[in-house]
Amino acid sequence: MFRAVDLITKKRDGQKLTREELAFLINGYVNNEIPDYQISAFLMAIYFVGLDFEEMTALTEVMVHSGDMIDLSPIKGVKVDKHSTGGVGDKTSLVVGPICAAGGVKIAKMSGRGLGHTGGTLDKLESIPGYKIELDSQAFFQQVNDIGLSIIGQSANITPADKKLYALRDVTGTIESIGLIAASIMSKKLASGADYIVLDVKVGSGAFMKEVASATKLAEAMVSIGKASGRKTVATLTDMEQPLGNAIGNTLEVIEAIETLKGKGPKDFAELCYNLSAEVFLISGIASSMKDALALVDEVINSGKALEKFKQMVERQGGNPKVVEDYSLMPLATHTVELFYREDQEAYVEHIDALKIGEAAMILGAGRAKKEDQIDHGVGIVIHKKVGEKVKKGEKIATLYTSGEYIEEALSLTHDAYRFSETKVAPRPIIITSIR
Amino acid sequence: MFRAVDLITKKRDGQKLTREELAFLINGYVNNEIPDYQISAFLMAIYFVGLDFEEMTALTEVMVHSGDMIDLSPIKGVKVDKHSTGGVGDKTSLVVGPICAAGGVKIAKMSGRGLGHTGGTLDKLESIPGYKIELDSQAFFQQVNDIGLSIIGQSANITPADKKLYALRDVTGTIESIGLIAASIMSKKLASGADYIVLDVKVGSGAFMKEVASATKLAEAMVSIGKASGRKTVATLTDMEQPLGNAIGNTLEVIEAIETLKGKGPKDFAELCYNLSAEVFLISGIASSMKDALALVDEVINSGKALEKFKQMVERQGGNPKVVEDYSLMPLATHTVELFYREDQEAYVEHIDALKIGEAAMILGAGRAKKEDQIDHGVGIVIHKKVGEKVKKGEKIATLYTSGEYIEEALSLTHDAYRFSETKVAPRPIIITSIR
Repeated sequence: MFRAVDLITKKRDGQKLTREELAFLINGYVNNEIPDYQISAFLMAIYFVGLDFEEMTALTEVMVHSGDMIDLSPIKGVKVDKHSTGGVGDKTSLVVGPICAAGGVKIAKMSGRGLGHTGGTLDKLESIPGYKIELDSQAFFQQVNDIGLSIIGQSANITPADKKLYALRDVTGTIESIGLIAASIMSKKLASGADYIVLDVKVGSGAFMKEVASATKLAEAMVSIGKASGRKTVATLTDMEQPLGNAIGNTLEVIEAIETLKGKGPKDFAELCYNLSAEVFLISGIASSMKDALALVDEVINSGKALEKFKQMVERQGGNPKVVEDYSLMPLATHTVELFYREDQEAYVEHIDALKIGEAAMILGAGRAKKEDQIDHGVGIVIHKKVGEKVKKGEKIATLYTSGEYIEEALSLTHDAYRFSETKVAPRPIIITSIR
Repeated sequence: MFRAVDLITKKRDGQKLTREELAFLINGYVNNEIPDYQISAFLMAIYFVGLDFEEMTALTEVMVHSGDMIDLSPIKGVKVDKHSTGGVGDKTSLVVGPICAAGGVKIAKMSGRGLGHTGGTLDKLESIPGYKIELDSQAFFQQVNDIGLSIIGQSANITPADKKLYALRDVTGTIESIGLIAASIMSKKLASGADYIVLDVKVGSGAFMKEVASATKLAEAMVSIGKASGRKTVATLTDMEQPLGNAIGNTLEVIEAIETLKGKGPKDFAELCYNLSAEVFLISGIASSMKDALALVDEVINSGKALEKFKQMVERQGGNPKVVEDYSLMPLATHTVELFYREDQEAYVEHIDALKIGEAAMILGAGRAKKEDQIDHGVGIVIHKKVGEKVKKGEKIATLYTSGEYIEEALSLTHDAYRFSETKVAPRPIIITSIR
């Protein structure tokens, strides 16, 4: 059989590993037969040498088979999974899910909790009183068959190899590898059982991928892996040079998502949700062109059908559907602090550092640094001025919702996140390109 | 304080680490505060990014201070340490030590056992009945003060950081890094306390460094580290395209060393020993030119003074000095197997694969694969034809000394080690260059 050190050396020296060799290393690691110190050296070698598409596909499939694979066949119709690489203010699932379900696609979404500046999709949904994220398979399948939509917590043992590898990468400086990121994301998507996969790859200073070039490589890698594994996949590169939308924080983001379902969302966030939904309609064959797909999005928004889907989902999962009309039913911090623009000179917002805004939200209590941390659903930040907007002395730039703690630090971070310019600034378009 | 993952990432991204950062990682590892999986990723990052001279020097000094440092000040005179990077048939210490002591230099050598195709210097010396490799410091210092020479086993806790790192590198594909090799060797040399250091860096298919270019880099790195740490250091690059000398095996090598001290050694091995000894005379100021240094070597060989030093050392350390005249006092396998040249066509030896010969010796029992393995001092191989020599049908190429086991495999390896050419072949010179 193989020896781990020989395979590490092989990869280190730029050679390609076979599927059997990758399986030996990954399965050996999961089964505690190969120690973490060999795998971390292997991961660092991959960081420098890279993986080609065949290796990425093989690694992905090895990880898929390391745990449970979800069988969505009890759900009738076309099942699509939309996934975002994540960013500050990202609540797209809350909008894209209902739009797509209203258009006839089946959205059976299982989310993880994860760590981050704000909570994940599950934490956001838990801002709605009564909303249950735990459903057994049968109830989950039934709900999606009935109304086309459910978002629940991931309870199956999906891709344990990825979990173990990710934890190791996190502490060994080996996160930032296109091949490893692509295999990690795609293994979870493939194990989750959807027919088609729509990926939202964020690019910019607030995202994991800072440059269009590297994001394009990641997108191409994921689309290739998806195709090689027999799943039609599309990846849309979207801008993350500033926070997405205006709201950052759990209840605040649910409110913004509902507003968007009502057709009143912030321009950048609404455009992103509509485009991703259109990609879902396109890939699933419900629309035959992007124009038709976007028209269908307009239709389900304007008719209120998308909002209705959201209400149905909330109700079916035990939540109070009246939140859609009465936002005060959700927890929201009553103490607010305003950040004003104080310069005499009028200016344009040139840049808003999304990571600083995210960190400020985290300090306020909106997110989790460690698994055990408690989230405060009611805190967060609302941005009033986005990139390109004009500001003059005394205008509000942002509002912080706080329980009172750490307000100074959060305020100062929010302040520092803003950069102004005396000359006009054009914001980057939210949709950069799609890779099919 | 620092976080290990940040320092790994810093090195990964091509940045230079400070002495404090390197100390944090290495000391943390030795103290079990930083886990091996972070250090192995760090080592792989170094493999790809490298270390500059300042980093190598800092790393070396951190490792030096991780354990005991030998104080040789009780020994009067100039103390020189000669170190070889090792190769098949390398018994230079047994010859260089006595020559240098006869010329007035103090050689207080502490050797490790290590693993290898044949035993280390200590194992070779133990072929001499009665020779004790364990002396307490006082007896060791006394002997060197009295006769100028002692070779004993390393009992102090020298550079534990290097031991721990080396063991990790060995199983993670991170041995082959110039910076790490240089720091590893130099930390041991610096901790051993000699005033001057003469390094024999082997180059060729039978050595760790296959190419002159990489061996030159390693030599330059070690000389720089030595100088930066206040120790005059010279490194001589020497050829290891074929086994060194004719004898491979413990008793066999002691016999060849004694023959060389009598002025009757094989040409390549004798030339190497004389040159390294001359480098020792030069660096210690006993000779002022290479010409004078080589003349002094000739003098101590021709006068028998060098051989006398060897006898004195053996006697002082409890061994039987009569072995110098009567080789049969040492254990030697009585069963021998000859390898003949069997082709009709006369030819020249073009290449002798030193690693295959070494492996054959190991199979016969001359070396150790694991620490616990027992060495058979009496087995080994004598090569009768070296690169460039003419061979005709029926001539002996090599003799295997065996206790009878594994003879087929060893014979076949020895056979496969030889490559012949119909045209004349010039052997590479044994001395390639010196780096000061």
